[in-house]
Amino acid sequence: MPAEAAPSFVWVEELPDAGARLRLSGEESHYLAHVCRARAGDRIRASDGRGGLAALRLLAVGAVVEVEIESVERSNPTRTARLLCGAPEAQRADWLVEKLAELGIAGLQPIDCRRGAWKVARDRRERWRRLAIAALRQSRRRFVLEVLDPLPLDAALASVPPGASCWVADPIGQPASRIQPPVHGLSVGLVGPSGGFDAGERDDIRARGIGPMCLADGRLRTETAGLAWGAWWSAGGSPEGIESALPG
Amino acid sequence: MPAEAAPSFVWVEELPDAGARLRLSGEESHYLAHVCRARAGDRIRASDGRGGLAALRLLAVGAVVEVEIESVERSNPTRTARLLCGAPEAQRADWLVEKLAELGIAGLQPIDCRRGAWKVARDRRERWRRLAIAALRQSRRRFVLEVLDPLPLDAALASVPPGASCWVADPIGQPASRIQPPVHGLSVGLVGPSGGFDAGERDDIRARGIGPMCLADGRLRTETAGLAWGAWWSAGGSPEGIESALPG
Repeated sequence: MPAEAAPSFVWVEELPDAGARLRLSGEESHYLAHVCRARAGDRIRASDGRGGLAALRLLAVGAVVEVEIESVERSNPTRTARLLCGAPEAQRADWLVEKLAELGIAGLQPIDCRRGAWKVARDRRERWRRLAIAALRQSRRRFVLEVLDPLPLDAALASVPPGASCWVADPIGQPASRIQPPVHGLSVGLVGPSGGFDAGERDDIRARGIGPMCLADGRLRTETAGLAWGAWWSAGGSPEGIESALPG
Repeated sequence: MPAEAAPSFVWVEELPDAGARLRLSGEESHYLAHVCRARAGDRIRASDGRGGLAALRLLAVGAVVEVEIESVERSNPTRTARLLCGAPEAQRADWLVEKLAELGIAGLQPIDCRRGAWKVARDRRERWRRLAIAALRQSRRRFVLEVLDPLPLDAALASVPPGASCWVADPIGQPASRIQPPVHGLSVGLVGPSGGFDAGERDDIRARGIGPMCLADGRLRTETAGLAWGAWWSAGGSPEGIESALPG
């Protein structure tokens, strides 16, 4: 491990207040013991994925790692992003989930469209949760990506709160490089399924005043467009969402 | 297939002049016959991945598809991008290759660093070529991604021609959203291996005047940073690189 490495970083389901002791999950314990090679006495960081960030001290390292909470800080995000995304092909959703989580997107809302619907088995949901948590560790984030249950396009659009900044990925739109990502509030990206939106869906989207954004100079697969939108949004952020803000 | 679908698009190794007849490869023939369900008489498009773009007419569709070239147009790119990238973990390079190709990056130069070297087996190179060609079809591009042989960081940096615009992915850099991607010439992105650049490598990069660019508000895995840099660059393009420019 490089000498200047930051302290190890884990996810905890619930983050009690300073002074409390906690037993980490099997997965986080394994990660600390076998990937980070942490030892009793080490100081690490933890996030609950809902804005809570803590400094911890390891009390015992084994199959279950025990920690003491030294300090906790809880915050709300000043900017968040949600991607409404049609179904990509095959297993491509797995890496979409992983990459959106790394980029700090708060929510992935799968949308069912006339040319493509999601098939989400229960084990897939669990896998996505694990991928999102691993990405939170990797990116040292305070907020974890939540993957929502699929909704029809109409219902997903209706679920977007008023005041959100919305774009739809569209090769004929304004180049993303010419649009500054918002620094406050909710940004929403909309990407069609692998077969694309149909004409009626495109009319509905236009009628809602959602502006087209061109993400690349060529056609992108669904998951690549989702990722490119996420990268566009993430590049406009300051590091407030991650753990570097925590003192000590 | 949607009624407004664009003509099918394939890759050909060599693109002869208009009037010539051609037999497509087994893979492209299979794609046309079984994925696109093309028929004799259909008109399609083809690219050689080196700037050549053709309108073709299908003469016979079977295990080998025969075509006649109706028109050809050859062009040079006005903007290109190359990613110098350290080794990501495990199989993550596969999707980096696929996504860079979709985004229109011209070259992926794997770099061997003190904290990580590439292991590139021959079958992996062949797989990357297939992924890049599939992405060219998907994105209807004139230019295919080329994956170069790994080079040590020093040699890779020395291979960058003078006048290229260079950035290194770095969380303390200027936010990518504040930097307009160049519309001409060669852009070069530099991303460290999964273990990061070491201090000496960072000094070398700084000494060459390569500016740091912050791609996201959290740490990104190597392949995610490479992808985010590619998305940043691609969002600055006009569609000249793809087939929509071809008349007819």
